[in-house]
Amino acid sequence: MSSVDNRAVVDLLGVLAYAELTAFDHLAEDARLAPTLAGRAALARMAAAEIGHHERLAARLTELGADPTAAMTPFVAALDAFHEITRPRTWLEGLVKAYVGDGLAADFYREIAAFLPDPDRALILDVLADTGHADFAVREVRAAIAVHRSVAGRLALWGRRLVGEAITQSQAVIAERDQLAQLIIQGTGDLAGVGRLVERITAAHTERMRTLGLNP
Amino acid sequence: MSSVDNRAVVDLLGVLAYAELTAFDHLAEDARLAPTLAGRAALARMAAAEIGHHERLAARLTELGADPTAAMTPFVAALDAFHEITRPRTWLEGLVKAYVGDGLAADFYREIAAFLPDPDRALILDVLADTGHADFAVREVRAAIAVHRSVAGRLALWGRRLVGEAITQSQAVIAERDQLAQLIIQGTGDLAGVGRLVERITAAHTERMRTLGLNP
Repeated sequence: MSSVDNRAVVDLLGVLAYAELTAFDHLAEDARLAPTLAGRAALARMAAAEIGHHERLAARLTELGADPTAAMTPFVAALDAFHEITRPRTWLEGLVKAYVGDGLAADFYREIAAFLPDPDRALILDVLADTGHADFAVREVRAAIAVHRSVAGRLALWGRRLVGEAITQSQAVIAERDQLAQLIIQGTGDLAGVGRLVERITAAHTERMRTLGLNP
Repeated sequence: MSSVDNRAVVDLLGVLAYAELTAFDHLAEDARLAPTLAGRAALARMAAAEIGHHERLAARLTELGADPTAAMTPFVAALDAFHEITRPRTWLEGLVKAYVGDGLAADFYREIAAFLPDPDRALILDVLADTGHADFAVREVRAAIAVHRSVAGRLALWGRRLVGEAITQSQAVIAERDQLAQLIIQGTGDLAGVGRLVERITAAHTERMRTLGLNP
Protein backbone atom coordinates (compact mmCIF):
# COMPACT_ATOMS: atom_id res chain seq x y z
CA MET A 1 0.00 0.00 0.00
CA SER A 2 1.36 3.43 -0.92
CA SER A 3 1.83 5.84 1.94
CA VAL A 4 -1.25 7.68 3.18
CA ASP A 5 -1.26 11.41 3.92
CA ASN A 6 -1.50 11.79 7.69
CA ARG A 7 -3.98 14.66 7.24
CA ALA A 8 -6.37 12.27 5.51
CA VAL A 9 -6.16 9.88 8.46
CA VAL A 10 -6.87 12.73 10.89
CA ASP A 11 -9.77 13.86 8.67
CA LEU A 12 -11.32 10.40 8.60
CA LEU A 13 -10.91 9.88 12.36
CA GLY A 14 -12.23 13.42 12.95
CA VAL A 15 -15.36 13.07 10.83
CA LEU A 16 -16.08 9.68 12.40
CA ALA A 17 -15.53 11.00 15.94
CA TYR A 18 -18.03 13.78 15.30
CA ALA A 19 -20.42 11.39 13.53
CA GLU A 20 -20.46 9.19 16.65
CA LEU A 21 -21.07 12.20 18.90
CA THR A 22 -24.04 13.39 16.79
CA ALA A 23 -25.34 9.82 16.45
CA PHE A 24 -25.37 9.69 20.25
CA ASP A 25 -27.36 12.95 20.41
CA HIS A 26 -29.91 11.94 17.87
CA LEU A 27 -30.44 8.39 19.09
CA ALA A 28 -30.88 9.80 22.60
CA GLU A 29 -33.44 12.28 21.27
CA ASP A 30 -35.29 9.62 19.27
CA ALA A 31 -35.37 7.33 22.31
CA ARG A 32 -37.94 9.70 23.78
CA LEU A 33 -40.30 8.88 20.91
CA ALA A 34 -40.39 5.22 21.98
CA PRO A 35 -43.88 3.84 22.65
CA THR A 36 -42.57 1.57 25.46
CA LEU A 37 -39.96 1.82 28.23
CA ALA A 38 -38.23 -1.24 26.74
CA GLY A 39 -37.96 0.47 23.34
CA ARG A 40 -36.66 3.64 24.98
CA ALA A 41 -33.98 1.65 26.82
CA ALA A 42 -33.00 -0.16 23.59
CA LEU A 43 -32.40 3.09 21.70
CA ALA A 44 -30.59 4.58 24.72
CA ARG A 45 -28.27 1.55 24.69
CA MET A 46 -27.50 2.15 20.99
CA ALA A 47 -26.69 5.77 21.84
CA ALA A 48 -24.38 4.69 24.66
CA ALA A 49 -22.49 2.38 22.30
CA GLU A 50 -21.81 5.33 19.97
CA ILE A 51 -20.25 7.42 22.72
CA GLY A 52 -17.89 4.54 23.53
CA HIS A 53 -16.78 4.60 19.89
CA HIS A 54 -16.36 8.36 20.02
CA GLU A 55 -14.00 8.01 22.97
CA ARG A 56 -11.78 5.48 21.19
CA LEU A 57 -11.51 7.67 18.09
CA ALA A 58 -10.74 10.78 20.17
CA ALA A 59 -8.05 8.83 22.06
CA ARG A 60 -6.44 7.75 18.77
CA LEU A 61 -6.48 11.35 17.47
CA THR A 62 -4.69 12.48 20.65
CA GLU A 63 -2.17 9.66 20.17
CA LEU A 64 -1.48 10.95 16.63
CA GLY A 65 -0.77 14.39 18.08
CA ALA A 66 -4.05 15.86 16.79
CA ASP A 67 -6.52 17.79 18.92
CA PRO A 68 -9.87 15.93 18.75
CA THR A 69 -11.90 19.16 18.76
CA ALA A 70 -9.84 20.65 15.91
CA ALA A 71 -10.13 17.39 13.95
CA MET A 72 -13.93 17.30 14.34
CA THR A 73 -14.62 20.98 13.67
CA PRO A 74 -14.46 20.91 9.81
CA PHE A 75 -17.31 18.38 9.76
CA VAL A 76 -19.68 19.94 12.29
CA ALA A 77 -21.67 22.04 9.80
CA ALA A 78 -22.33 19.24 7.27
CA LEU A 79 -23.27 16.60 9.86
CA ASP A 80 -25.46 19.02 11.83
CA ALA A 81 -27.20 20.03 8.59
CA PHE A 82 -27.85 16.37 7.75
CA HIS A 83 -29.40 15.68 11.14
CA GLU A 84 -31.38 18.91 11.16
CA ILE A 85 -32.96 18.14 7.79
CA THR A 86 -33.62 14.47 8.61
CA ARG A 87 -35.07 14.84 12.09
CA PRO A 88 -37.47 11.89 12.58
CA ARG A 89 -41.04 12.86 13.45
CA THR A 90 -42.04 9.39 14.59
CA TRP A 91 -40.57 6.43 16.43
CA LEU A 92 -40.52 4.35 13.20
CA GLU A 93 -38.78 7.11 11.22
CA GLY A 94 -36.17 7.17 13.98
CA LEU A 95 -35.62 3.42 13.72
CA VAL A 96 -35.34 3.52 9.91
CA LYS A 97 -32.82 6.34 10.25
CA ALA A 98 -30.84 4.41 12.86
CA TYR A 99 -30.73 1.30 10.64
CA VAL A 100 -30.67 2.62 7.06
CA GLY A 101 -28.89 5.94 7.68
CA ASP A 102 -26.23 4.62 10.05
CA GLY A 103 -25.79 1.53 7.86
CA LEU A 104 -25.12 3.64 4.79
CA ALA A 105 -22.67 5.88 6.64
CA ALA A 106 -20.87 2.87 8.12
CA ASP A 107 -20.46 1.28 4.65
CA PHE A 108 -19.00 4.52 3.32
CA TYR A 109 -16.52 4.92 6.19
CA ARG A 110 -15.58 1.23 5.94
CA GLU A 111 -14.74 1.58 2.24
CA ILE A 112 -12.41 4.50 2.96
CA ALA A 113 -10.89 2.83 6.02
CA ALA A 114 -9.81 -0.06 3.76
CA PHE A 115 -7.29 2.35 2.19
CA LEU A 116 -5.60 3.09 5.55
CA PRO A 117 -2.79 1.16 7.21
CA ASP A 118 -3.32 -0.42 10.63
CA PRO A 119 -3.95 0.35 13.48
CA ASP A 120 -6.32 2.98 12.05
CA ARG A 121 -8.02 0.61 9.64
CA ALA A 122 -8.64 -1.95 12.39
CA LEU A 123 -9.87 0.72 14.83
CA ILE A 124 -12.37 2.14 12.33
CA LEU A 125 -13.68 -1.28 11.25
CA ASP A 126 -14.05 -2.15 14.91
CA VAL A 127 -16.05 0.92 15.94
CA LEU A 128 -18.25 0.47 12.86
CA ALA A 129 -19.00 -3.20 13.58
CA ASP A 130 -22.71 -3.73 14.16
CA THR A 131 -23.35 -4.30 17.83
CA GLY A 132 -26.51 -6.32 17.21
CA HIS A 133 -28.75 -3.30 17.74
CA ALA A 134 -29.77 -3.39 14.06
CA ASP A 135 -31.83 -6.50 14.79
CA PHE A 136 -33.97 -4.45 17.15
CA ALA A 137 -34.79 -1.84 14.49
CA VAL A 138 -35.58 -4.51 11.89
CA ARG A 139 -37.89 -6.37 14.27
CA GLU A 140 -39.81 -3.24 15.29
CA VAL A 141 -40.24 -1.87 11.77
CA ARG A 142 -41.34 -5.23 10.31
CA ALA A 143 -43.81 -5.68 13.16
CA ALA A 144 -45.29 -2.20 12.53
CA ILE A 145 -45.65 -2.88 8.79
CA ALA A 146 -47.35 -6.19 9.51
CA VAL A 147 -50.00 -4.31 11.51
CA HIS A 148 -50.39 -1.26 9.25
CA ARG A 149 -49.39 -2.08 5.69
CA SER A 150 -49.75 1.62 4.75
CA VAL A 151 -46.74 2.76 6.82
CA ALA A 152 -44.41 0.86 4.42
CA GLY A 153 -44.95 3.41 1.63
CA ARG A 154 -44.23 6.40 3.86
CA LEU A 155 -41.17 4.78 5.41
CA ALA A 156 -39.82 3.80 1.96
CA LEU A 157 -40.02 7.47 0.91
CA TRP A 158 -38.30 8.42 4.15
CA GLY A 159 -35.49 5.90 3.46
CA ARG A 160 -34.93 7.38 0.00
CA ARG A 161 -34.85 10.89 1.42
CA LEU A 162 -32.19 9.84 3.95
CA VAL A 163 -29.95 8.57 1.14
CA GLY A 164 -30.43 11.72 -0.90
CA GLU A 165 -29.50 13.98 2.01
CA ALA A 166 -26.56 11.76 2.98
CA ILE A 167 -25.14 11.97 -0.56
CA THR A 168 -25.58 15.76 -0.68
CA GLN A 169 -23.73 16.27 2.61
CA SER A 170 -20.97 13.73 1.83
CA GLN A 171 -20.21 15.46 -1.46
CA ALA A 172 -20.03 18.84 0.28
CA VAL A 173 -17.56 17.44 2.82
CA ILE A 174 -15.32 15.67 0.29
CA ALA A 175 -15.25 18.74 -1.97
CA GLU A 176 -13.73 20.74 0.89
CA ARG A 177 -11.23 18.18 2.19
CA ASP A 178 -8.54 17.71 -0.47
CA GLN A 179 -6.61 14.99 1.35
CA LEU A 180 -9.75 12.94 1.93
CA ALA A 181 -10.76 13.23 -1.75
CA GLN A 182 -7.20 12.29 -2.72
CA LEU A 183 -7.32 9.23 -0.46
CA ILE A 184 -10.54 8.00 -2.11
CA ILE A 185 -9.26 8.53 -5.67
CA GLN A 186 -5.88 6.98 -4.86
CA GLY A 187 -7.45 4.07 -2.96
CA THR A 188 -10.04 3.15 -5.60
CA GLY A 189 -7.42 3.52 -8.37
CA ASP A 190 -9.46 5.60 -10.79
CA LEU A 191 -12.93 6.96 -11.52
CA ALA A 192 -14.18 3.51 -12.48
CA GLY A 193 -13.04 2.39 -9.02
CA VAL A 194 -15.02 5.23 -7.42
CA GLY A 195 -18.03 4.07 -9.46
CA ARG A 196 -17.70 0.52 -8.15
CA LEU A 197 -17.43 1.82 -4.58
CA VAL A 198 -20.70 3.76 -5.01
CA GLU A 199 -22.31 0.66 -6.54
CA ARG A 200 -21.33 -1.52 -3.57
CA ILE A 201 -22.73 1.03 -1.11
CA THR A 202 -25.96 1.36 -3.11
CA ALA A 203 -26.41 -2.42 -3.29
CA ALA A 204 -25.98 -2.76 0.49
CA HIS A 205 -28.52 0.05 1.02
CA THR A 206 -31.06 -1.68 -1.24
CA GLU A 207 -30.54 -4.88 0.73
CA ARG A 208 -31.17 -3.08 4.05
CA MET A 209 -34.40 -1.51 2.76
CA ARG A 210 -35.61 -4.99 1.67
CA THR A 211 -34.68 -6.41 5.07
CA LEU A 212 -36.98 -3.81 6.67
CA GLY A 213 -39.75 -4.81 4.24
CA LEU A 214 -39.48 -1.50 2.35
CA ASN A 215 -39.39 -0.88 -1.37
CA PRO A 216 -35.89 0.52 -2.03
CA MET B 1 -31.17 -8.32 59.45
CA SER B 2 -34.87 -9.13 59.53
CA SER B 3 -36.37 -10.38 56.30
CA VAL B 4 -37.16 -7.79 53.66
CA ASP B 5 -40.42 -7.75 51.71
CA ASN B 6 -39.62 -8.79 48.15
CA ARG B 7 -41.99 -6.09 46.84
CA ALA B 8 -39.83 -3.43 48.50
CA VAL B 9 -36.75 -4.79 46.72
CA VAL B 10 -38.57 -4.75 43.37
CA ASP B 11 -39.77 -1.20 44.12
CA LEU B 12 -36.29 0.03 44.90
CA LEU B 13 -34.74 -1.64 41.85
CA GLY B 14 -37.64 -0.36 39.73
CA VAL B 15 -37.40 3.28 40.81
CA LEU B 16 -33.62 3.18 40.34
CA ALA B 17 -33.90 1.55 36.89
CA TYR B 18 -36.26 4.32 35.79
CA ALA B 19 -34.12 6.99 37.46
CA GLU B 20 -31.12 5.82 35.42
CA LEU B 21 -33.16 5.86 32.21
CA THR B 22 -34.38 9.41 32.81
CA ALA B 23 -30.91 10.51 33.93
CA PHE B 24 -29.64 9.25 30.58
CA ASP B 25 -32.29 11.29 28.74
CA HIS B 26 -31.65 14.47 30.61
CA LEU B 27 -27.86 14.30 30.56
CA ALA B 28 -28.05 13.64 26.81
CA GLU B 29 -30.32 16.64 26.39
CA ASP B 30 -28.11 18.87 28.55
CA ALA B 31 -25.03 17.76 26.58
CA ARG B 32 -26.36 19.85 23.70
CA LEU B 33 -26.04 22.99 25.85
CA ALA B 34 -22.27 22.44 26.09
CA PRO B 35 -20.15 25.39 24.93
CA THR B 36 -17.42 23.03 23.59
CA LEU B 37 -17.29 19.68 21.81
CA ALA B 38 -15.16 18.34 24.69
CA GLY B 39 -17.82 19.35 27.23
CA ARG B 40 -20.54 17.81 25.08
CA ALA B 41 -18.60 14.51 24.90
CA ALA B 42 -18.04 14.57 28.69
CA LEU B 43 -21.76 14.87 29.45
CA ALA B 44 -22.59 12.26 26.80
CA ARG B 45 -20.16 9.87 28.55
CA MET B 46 -21.96 10.45 31.87
CA ALA B 47 -25.24 9.65 30.12
CA ALA B 48 -23.80 6.46 28.64
CA ALA B 49 -22.68 5.31 32.11
CA GLU B 50 -26.27 5.68 33.38
CA ILE B 51 -27.68 3.43 30.68
CA GLY B 52 -25.15 0.73 31.62
CA HIS B 53 -26.50 0.94 35.18
CA HIS B 54 -30.06 0.77 33.92
CA GLU B 55 -29.26 -2.48 32.10
CA ARG B 56 -27.82 -4.13 35.21
CA LEU B 57 -30.86 -3.18 37.30
CA ALA B 58 -33.28 -4.40 34.62
CA ALA B 59 -31.36 -7.70 34.39
CA ARG B 60 -31.63 -8.17 38.16
CA LEU B 61 -35.38 -7.44 38.09
CA THR B 62 -35.81 -10.11 35.40
CA GLU B 63 -33.74 -12.52 37.53
CA LEU B 64 -36.14 -11.86 40.45
CA GLY B 65 -39.06 -12.79 38.19
CA ALA B 66 -40.25 -9.17 37.89
CA ASP B 67 -40.98 -7.45 34.59
CA PRO B 68 -38.69 -4.37 34.38
CA THR B 69 -41.36 -2.24 32.68
CA ALA B 70 -43.97 -3.10 35.33
CA ALA B 71 -41.44 -2.40 38.10
CA MET B 72 -40.57 1.03 36.67
CA THR B 73 -44.10 2.16 35.81
CA PRO B 74 -45.24 3.31 39.32
CA PHE B 75 -42.36 5.82 39.39
CA VAL B 76 -42.65 7.30 35.89
CA ALA B 77 -45.01 10.16 36.80
CA ALA B 78 -43.03 11.44 39.83
CA LEU B 79 -39.62 11.28 38.14
CA ASP B 80 -40.91 12.82 34.91
CA ALA B 81 -42.52 15.62 36.94
CA PHE B 82 -39.23 16.26 38.76
CA HIS B 83 -37.29 16.53 35.50
CA GLU B 84 -39.96 18.60 33.79
CA ILE B 85 -39.96 21.17 36.60
CA THR B 86 -36.16 21.26 36.92
CA ARG B 87 -35.23 21.47 33.24
CA PRO B 88 -31.89 23.35 33.10
CA ARG B 89 -31.90 26.48 30.96
CA THR B 90 -28.12 26.79 30.82
CA TRP B 91 -25.05 24.57 30.62
CA LEU B 92 -24.09 25.47 34.20
CA GLU B 93 -27.57 24.70 35.56
CA GLY B 94 -27.27 21.32 33.82
CA LEU B 95 -23.93 20.63 35.52
CA VAL B 96 -25.21 21.66 38.96
CA LYS B 97 -28.20 19.38 38.45
CA ALA B 98 -25.94 16.49 37.36
CA TYR B 99 -23.72 16.94 40.43
CA VAL B 100 -26.04 18.16 43.20
CA GLY B 101 -29.28 16.51 42.05
CA ASP B 102 -27.80 13.14 41.17
CA GLY B 103 -25.64 13.24 44.30
CA LEU B 104 -28.65 13.80 46.52
CA ALA B 105 -30.63 11.04 44.83
CA ALA B 106 -27.68 8.65 45.08
CA ASP B 107 -27.31 9.32 48.82
CA PHE B 108 -30.99 8.62 49.36
CA TYR B 109 -30.95 5.35 47.40
CA ARG B 110 -27.74 4.30 49.15
CA GLU B 111 -29.33 4.79 52.58
CA ILE B 112 -32.26 2.55 51.63
CA ALA B 113 -30.03 -0.03 49.92
CA ALA B 114 -28.20 -0.47 53.26
CA PHE B 115 -31.39 -2.14 54.58
CA LEU B 116 -31.37 -4.80 51.82
CA PRO B 117 -29.55 -8.14 51.83
CA ASP B 118 -26.94 -8.91 49.14
CA PRO B 119 -26.72 -9.22 46.16
CA ASP B 120 -29.19 -6.32 45.83
CA ARG B 121 -27.39 -4.09 48.29
CA ALA B 122 -24.05 -4.62 46.52
CA LEU B 123 -25.61 -4.09 43.07
CA ILE B 124 -27.25 -0.80 44.08
CA LEU B 125 -24.13 0.55 45.82
CA ASP B 126 -22.13 -0.40 42.75
CA VAL B 127 -24.35 1.35 40.18
CA LEU B 128 -24.47 4.43 42.44
CA ALA B 129 -20.68 4.62 42.83
CA ASP B 130 -19.38 7.87 41.40
CA THR B 131 -17.64 7.20 38.11
CA GLY B 132 -15.36 10.22 38.43
CA HIS B 133 -17.60 12.37 36.27
CA ALA B 134 -18.47 14.56 39.25
CA ASP B 135 -14.97 16.03 39.05
CA PHE B 136 -15.80 17.38 35.63
CA ALA B 137 -18.90 19.24 36.86
CA VAL B 138 -17.03 20.67 39.85
CA ARG B 139 -14.17 21.91 37.70
CA GLU B 140 -16.46 23.58 35.14
CA VAL B 141 -18.73 25.27 37.71
CA ARG B 142 -15.82 26.56 39.82
CA ALA B 143 -14.11 27.91 36.70
CA ALA B 144 -17.28 29.73 35.64
CA ILE B 145 -17.72 31.27 39.10
CA ALA B 146 -14.10 32.41 39.09
CA VAL B 147 -14.80 34.37 35.88
CA HIS B 148 -18.26 35.71 36.77
CA ARG B 149 -18.74 35.88 40.51
CA SER B 150 -22.42 36.80 40.00
CA VAL B 151 -23.38 33.36 38.64
CA ALA B 152 -22.74 31.85 42.10
CA GLY B 153 -25.87 33.47 43.57
CA ARG B 154 -28.14 32.27 40.78
CA LEU B 155 -26.69 28.75 40.84
CA ALA B 156 -27.06 28.57 44.65
CA LEU B 157 -30.78 29.36 44.28
CA TRP B 158 -31.00 26.71 41.58
CA GLY B 159 -29.34 24.14 43.87
CA ARG B 160 -31.86 24.89 46.63
CA ARG B 161 -34.74 24.58 44.17
CA LEU B 162 -33.46 21.16 43.08
CA VAL B 163 -33.51 19.92 46.68
CA GLY B 164 -37.00 21.26 47.28
CA GLU B 165 -38.41 19.56 44.20
CA ALA B 166 -36.56 16.33 44.95
CA ILE B 167 -38.07 16.20 48.46
CA THR B 168 -41.58 16.92 47.14
CA GLN B 169 -41.39 14.11 44.58
CA SER B 170 -39.73 11.61 46.97
CA GLN B 171 -42.48 12.13 49.54
CA ALA B 172 -45.15 11.59 46.89
CA VAL B 173 -43.51 8.31 45.83
CA ILE B 174 -43.01 6.95 49.36
CA ALA B 175 -46.56 7.86 50.37
CA GLU B 176 -47.87 5.60 47.58
CA ARG B 177 -45.53 2.64 48.03
CA ASP B 178 -46.34 0.98 51.34
CA GLN B 179 -43.58 -1.62 51.22
CA LEU B 180 -40.95 1.00 50.48
CA ALA B 181 -42.14 3.19 53.37
CA GLN B 182 -42.17 0.11 55.59
CA LEU B 183 -38.60 -0.75 54.58
CA ILE B 184 -37.37 2.73 55.54
CA ILE B 185 -39.15 2.78 58.91
CA GLN B 186 -38.06 -0.79 59.71
CA GLY B 187 -34.47 -0.14 58.55
CA THR B 188 -33.95 3.11 60.46
CA GLY B 189 -35.59 1.61 63.56
CA ASP B 190 -37.94 4.49 64.42
CA LEU B 191 -38.82 8.09 63.58
CA ALA B 192 -35.63 9.35 65.24
CA GLY B 193 -33.76 7.05 62.86
CA VAL B 194 -35.59 8.57 59.88
CA GLY B 195 -34.60 12.00 61.20
CA ARG B 196 -30.93 11.01 61.34
CA LEU B 197 -31.14 9.63 57.78
CA VAL B 198 -32.50 12.98 56.53
CA GLU B 199 -29.76 14.81 58.48
CA ARG B 200 -27.02 12.72 56.86
CA ILE B 201 -28.42 13.39 53.38
CA THR B 202 -28.74 17.11 54.11
CA ALA B 203 -25.17 17.34 55.42
CA ALA B 204 -23.81 15.64 52.29
CA HIS B 205 -25.83 18.03 50.11
CA THR B 206 -24.43 21.05 51.96
CA GLU B 207 -20.95 19.67 51.43
CA ARG B 208 -21.52 19.28 47.67
CA MET B 209 -22.81 22.85 47.35
CA ARG B 210 -19.66 24.10 49.15
CA THR B 211 -17.47 21.98 46.85
CA LEU B 212 -19.01 23.79 43.87
CA GLY B 213 -18.31 27.13 45.55
CA LEU B 214 -22.02 27.75 46.20
CA ASN B 215 -23.74 28.97 49.34
CA PRO B 216 -25.89 26.00 50.49
